[in-house]
Amino acid sequence: MKHITFLTDFGLQDDFVGTCHGVMACIAPEARIIDITHGIPPQAILQGALVLRSTIKYMPVGVHLAVVDPGVGGHRRAVAMRTSDGRFFVGPDNGLLMLAADELGVEGAHELAAADYRLPDVSRTFHARDVFAPAAAHLAAGVAIDRLGPAVEAADLVRIDVPSPSVGKSQISATVVGVDRFGNVATNMSSDHVTGLGVARGDRVEVRLTFERYYAILADTFADADAGELILYEDSYGLVTLAISNGNAARLTGVGVGDELRIAVA
Amino acid sequence: MKHITFLTDFGLQDDFVGTCHGVMACIAPEARIIDITHGIPPQAILQGALVLRSTIKYMPVGVHLAVVDPGVGGHRRAVAMRTSDGRFFVGPDNGLLMLAADELGVEGAHELAAADYRLPDVSRTFHARDVFAPAAAHLAAGVAIDRLGPAVEAADLVRIDVPSPSVGKSQISATVVGVDRFGNVATNMSSDHVTGLGVARGDRVEVRLTFERYYAILADTFADADAGELILYEDSYGLVTLAISNGNAARLTGVGVGDELRIAVA
Amino acid sequence: MKHITFLTDFGLQDDFVGTCHGVMACIAPEARIIDITHGIPPQAILQGALVLRSTIKYMPVGVHLAVVDPGVGGHRRAVAMRTSDGRFFVGPDNGLLMLAADELGVEGAHELAAADYRLPDVSRTFHARDVFAPAAAHLAAGVAIDRLGPAVEAADLVRIDVPSPSVGKSQISATVVGVDRFGNVATNMSSDHVTGLGVARGDRVEVRLTFERYYAILADTFADADAGELILYEDSYGLVTLAISNGNAARLTGVGVGDELRIAVA
Repeated sequence: MKHITFLTDFGLQDDFVGTCHGVMACIAPEARIIDITHGIPPQAILQGALVLRSTIKYMPVGVHLAVVDPGVGGHRRAVAMRTSDGRFFVGPDNGLLMLAADELGVEGAHELAAADYRLPDVSRTFHARDVFAPAAAHLAAGVAIDRLGPAVEAADLVRIDVPSPSVGKSQISATVVGVDRFGNVATNMSSDHVTGLGVARGDRVEVRLTFERYYAILADTFADADAGELILYEDSYGLVTLAISNGNAARLTGVGVGDELRIAVA
Repeated sequence: MKHITFLTDFGLQDDFVGTCHGVMACIAPEARIIDITHGIPPQAILQGALVLRSTIKYMPVGVHLAVVDPGVGGHRRAVAMRTSDGRFFVGPDNGLLMLAADELGVEGAHELAAADYRLPDVSRTFHARDVFAPAAAHLAAGVAIDRLGPAVEAADLVRIDVPSPSVGKSQISATVVGVDRFGNVATNMSSDHVTGLGVARGDRVEVRLTFERYYAILADTFADADAGELILYEDSYGLVTLAISNGNAARLTGVGVGDELRIAVA
Repeated sequence: MKHITFLTDFGLQDDFVGTCHGVMACIAPEARIIDITHGIPPQAILQGALVLRSTIKYMPVGVHLAVVDPGVGGHRRAVAMRTSDGRFFVGPDNGLLMLAADELGVEGAHELAAADYRLPDVSRTFHARDVFAPAAAHLAAGVAIDRLGPAVEAADLVRIDVPSPSVGKSQISATVVGVDRFGNVATNMSSDHVTGLGVARGDRVEVRLTFERYYAILADTFADADAGELILYEDSYGLVTLAISNGNAARLTGVGVGDELRIAVA
């Protein structure tokens, strides 16, 4: 049983995802495809990389295809790599794969250059269909990774910086790294950052945005607050997140991915 | 061949659904997952319960996982139950499962308490991943339901009220229970309610909303009306529904789920 | 290994797609379903037909179910047909299937009339669930196509017109046939139409919309232009498309499907 997981910024309105499924089914009809998500915001490599890193441990060992690829058709490389736990990652060499892959340990990487493992006609704008999905499917079908193209030094693969919060004695300046469908606003802070301010569960903290300030309760879960109350909690991936019990914190506050969010002792 | 059906309010923008698929693929790699829908409005337990009830008879007998869970992390129980036709239902004990399960007949229920059938670390806010999906997958993989935790009396499971229309001699006050992508507005009326007013197919009825009133033709299908004409018809799940041939009735009228809609003899 | 591909205008907010998956899983539990897309704009038969035609060659040979069906419940026929490469197409007889099927060559068509291969109760408004999905699943399970109902002459199947651009010496009047999630605006022009104007890669052309005019670079891929610059390129399905490197051309220009877009030598 071979699994291929699939993560992109393609959305589900168009046929991009379905076409890649078709390509993989032609090459590896026995493989099972798990769509991690196709809702990464368009061309948001960092967000895609964060989601891939946080979800990978819930995925069966297999081939992990990810495509957020603003540089398609340009000079960025197409790559596949093996990690020390036996997984394969396939995607553009733009950092997307590397938060997950580096955590697991890259054992070898190859450029997707061999014509035998691409579609016969490679377009300039849809490498997911023509290059990446075929490579992922061939790996799932048992093709050895070194047949996909020349070896690439793991150290030469492109990495991206993950923004860190700026931590002071009485306040922290953080960055919003995700907003989910429920309006929960994930930041790049961990619980340790927040407790380092000397606040404890149940305490109120101040949340400062560009034009507004709010108060939030440090909580474990939604059930710790009254309906309509803002809370700060550690989400299920370990990120400190702003939310409202039975409400939409992103809509209330207007914050989005990339915005600054500062918290301070109230 | 084991099937797991999956219904949530998670949407497909985030990785919630994909992560649960991954968890289930790790535990029960042979199981096939059918996504009934993940478009239940956030935290709308009643709508989720109605959709589960109306779709269950189209699903293969298997494990039916459903999660609309505003009480996650609080005191609501996590449960699994068997129905008399051999199906298993898994989800929060908040009524979501019960419209479907009670119709089929609950034969036994268990609280999802056994640590062996949860993920090792259970978060406070993502029980779909950590508790419900593992339980569903273990059931699909053949684990006996009584190993998941202590028995719960079927009578003690939480039920929800389904609003009924208020039926008078010349008018009916109904509630909107769903709006689909085509703008069709489903109500809690049946055909019998409407014909009880003495109107027949082809007749005009008055449709009163808070601020507006419209006329609609009682019809069997879209083809019975001219383009742009409002119709009232029995939808494919048996609910009387307001629609426009080649148009969007929800957009025209502005009604949404939970709104009152009255119909009267024209 | 039997594959069923599935394309509709149902969206993923409701249970329509999931319910059809359930119906097919009951009839043909071994079949694998590939969702090409369910994001065709509501009732947009032409767009559905164009997407089916352009994606079919990436799909494994199997059963191809497509439903965009504004005439459901009326007089349009429900049909299945075999093409000369061994594929089966199933859907409404309204032109949706024919751009793909005619390119492959229709070998025989049948009306979906046999009660044995429909669900026992056929609703008036959800033939995807009650008629089309069952037929597709029975074909995938090995039922001979001629058991589905009486033969229909291939010449009698409904066709739709695909708009052609109007090509002059110094300008072309084209129609927008698709807008994808990235805001890329696909037209009905081919590369040959554009180069017929005497412009070459790297040249600027004028793009005239109803109220605005823009300049775009004729390019091969996004990497050929600076961020924020409009380009015209041949997309991965061979359609000349207006786009912005790192931006959303549809949002900038406000054009949508069906709009006129003229290009002229700058």
